[in-house]
Amino acid sequence: MSVIHTILTGDRPTGPLHLGHYAGSLRSRIALQGEHRQTLLIADLQALTDNAGRPAHVATNVLEVALDYLAVGIDTDRTTIALQSQLPALADLATLYMNLVTVARLERNPTVKAEIEQRGFARDIPAGFLCYPVSQAADITAFRATLVPVGDDQVPMIEQTNEIVRRVNRLANADVLPECEALLSRTPRLPGVDGRKASKSAGNAIALGATPDEITAAVNTMYTDPGHVRASDPGRVEGNVVFAYLDAFDADAMAVAELKARYRHGGLGDMVLKRRLIDLLEHHIAPIRAQRAALAQDLGYVRTIIERGTAIARGITDETAGEVRRRAFSLDPIAAA
Amino acid sequence: MSVIHTILTGDRPTGPLHLGHYAGSLRSRIALQGEHRQTLLIADLQALTDNAGRPAHVATNVLEVALDYLAVGIDTDRTTIALQSQLPALADLATLYMNLVTVARLERNPTVKAEIEQRGFARDIPAGFLCYPVSQAADITAFRATLVPVGDDQVPMIEQTNEIVRRVNRLANADVLPECEALLSRTPRLPGVDGRKASKSAGNAIALGATPDEITAAVNTMYTDPGHVRASDPGRVEGNVVFAYLDAFDADAMAVAELKARYRHGGLGDMVLKRRLIDLLEHHIAPIRAQRAALAQDLGYVRTIIERGTAIARGITDETAGEVRRRAFSLDPIAAA
Repeated sequence: MSVIHTILTGDRPTGPLHLGHYAGSLRSRIALQGEHRQTLLIADLQALTDNAGRPAHVATNVLEVALDYLAVGIDTDRTTIALQSQLPALADLATLYMNLVTVARLERNPTVKAEIEQRGFARDIPAGFLCYPVSQAADITAFRATLVPVGDDQVPMIEQTNEIVRRVNRLANADVLPECEALLSRTPRLPGVDGRKASKSAGNAIALGATPDEITAAVNTMYTDPGHVRASDPGRVEGNVVFAYLDAFDADAMAVAELKARYRHGGLGDMVLKRRLIDLLEHHIAPIRAQRAALAQDLGYVRTIIERGTAIARGITDETAGEVRRRAFSLDPIAAA
Repeated sequence: MSVIHTILTGDRPTGPLHLGHYAGSLRSRIALQGEHRQTLLIADLQALTDNAGRPAHVATNVLEVALDYLAVGIDTDRTTIALQSQLPALADLATLYMNLVTVARLERNPTVKAEIEQRGFARDIPAGFLCYPVSQAADITAFRATLVPVGDDQVPMIEQTNEIVRRVNRLANADVLPECEALLSRTPRLPGVDGRKASKSAGNAIALGATPDEITAAVNTMYTDPGHVRASDPGRVEGNVVFAYLDAFDADAMAVAELKARYRHGGLGDMVLKRRLIDLLEHHIAPIRAQRAALAQDLGYVRTIIERGTAIARGITDETAGEVRRRAFSLDPIAAA
C-alpha cells in the first residue's frame, strides 16, 4: 500500500510559466494530484525578495501563473491553489523560526550562496533574500508537507527545513511538525532555446500559451551543433537543444534514439529534426493554449479558484502556526497566559 | 498649542521591571499619557530573539510586566497595553520590510553591533536578532508612531525605521507612513547596586515590588567609594551608586547637592546616606508594592486589560499593514488582483 503524502510546491509569479516548467514540474504535478494531497503556492511574497522595486509586475503575474496551472490540467478538486501573501501564518512562523537559525548557517546555505552570486547581489543582499530558506521552511511546515518536489540545487533547503523541524520538536518535546523529504525530478532541467538556463526574462523560453508562429520561430533559433554544417556531417547530441526538447516531449523514445544515432553518424539535417520538434510542441501546446485563452475570458472564475484554495490553506496554516506557537514557544492566547 | 504625538514604547518581558525602568521610562510614560496617545507594547516576540530556548520564561513575564505597568500608575483609559505576539500585522510588515534593507546595512547598525558583542553571539547570531531593527521598524510604523522614547544607544534604530518609511513612501508614491523622532530620556541610566548595568539577570537591580528588607539589603550592598573608609575621609560622588539613586529619586535637589558637597569634603559617612536612600526608596516603592500585590490577586483583570488593549492595537496595526501592502507592494486581496 502506498503512502499518501502531503505535497507543497509552487512558483514565484514573476512571469507566465514556460515549457521548462511544464517538463520539469507541471506534468509531474498532474500525475501526483491523483495520489497525494497537493498544494500549489503562488509565492508572491517570495517573489518580492528580489523584486521589491516592481511589485505591480509580481501582482500581475499571480493570475498568469494560476491560468497556467488550470490550462495544463491542474484539477482544483484534487489540488489546492493558494496565494502566499494571503496566509498570515507563514510570516508568523518565519518570524519564530528566525530565532532558531543563525546568520552563519544561512550564509553557508549553498542554494543561497549560488543565487546571491547569480543575481549579483554581493554584500548588498536584501535581508529577506538571505532569510528565504527560513521562509521556505515556514511554507513547508505550515502545510505539514512531507514531500517537496525540488531540483538538486534546492536540496539544502529541505535540509534547512528539517533542522528547523527538529529544533521545534525539541522545544515542544513532541512531534509537532513532520520532517519532509525531497522529491527529486527525474527529468533533467530543460535548457532555453540558446542552450543557457531558460527564463522568461532572458527571452529564451517558450511560453505555455505560445502561438504556432512563436513555436516555429523559437525552434528555428534553437542551438544545435555549430560543427554540424551539412546534413551529411556527423553531429553532437550532447548540448544540442533540439534533442533536449525531443527527450522531454517525444513519447516515442525508440524513434528519438534512432534519430540520435543517425545524427551522430551524419546524414540527418537540423531542419528535419526541427520540423519534427515543431509538430511535437504544437501537439503539446495547442490544447493548453486553447484552454488558457478560454480561461482568460473569465478571470473572475480564476480569482474564485485562488480565493477558495487560499481559504482552505488559511485554515491549515493557521492551525499549524497556532500549535507551533503554543507548544514550542509558549505563546498562548492572552486569556490562557 | 502643542502637538499630540502617537507614542510607541514598551518592554521585553524577560523579568519583572525594576527601579532602573521606573527612573528611566515608567515615570515619564505616566507624564506622557496625559498629553499624547501612547501604546506600551509587551514585546514577547522580540524577547524570543535571544531567549528562544526559554519561551516559558518569556510567557510568565508578560503578566509581570503588565502588573508593573498598572502598579506604577499607567492609566489604561489613556494608554493602550498590547501584546506583540498577538498582532499578526507586525510579522507581516517585518516580512515586507526585510526586502527593503540589506544585510550589510543591518550589520552596520551600531546598536545591533553592540548588543551582539554584549550577548557574546559572535558569528552565531540568530537571524532574528540581526533583523530586529526591521522588526522594530514594523512595530513603530504599524502604530504610525511619531515619537519613540529611547536611550541614546537606540537612536540608530530610529534612523533605520525612517529609512524604511522613506522607502515605503517612495514605493507608494505617497506619504503612507509618518517618519518618527526619538524622544531622548533626560535622566541618565540608573546603575545596578554594584555600579554595573542594572539587570534582573545580573541580580543587581531593585524590583518594583521589593520588600522593605530587600530594599535595605540592596542599598547596604551599594557600591560607593572604596577610598572613603572613614566618615571623615573625602569621598567621590562620581560613580557612587548611592548618589546616582538620590539624584534619580530625591525630589529635594538642594539637599542632595549639599550632601554631595559634604561627602566630597569629608565628614559624611556612607551609612547616613544609605539610611536616607532606604527611606526614600521605601517611600517610592511602598505604594507600588501595595498596588502590585492587590492586582496580583486578580490576574483575570490584568489579562482583560491586555486583551482589550491588544484588540485596539490589532485594529490599528491591521489597518496600517493593509495600506502598506496595497499601496507600496501591490498586494491586493485576491478579488481585486
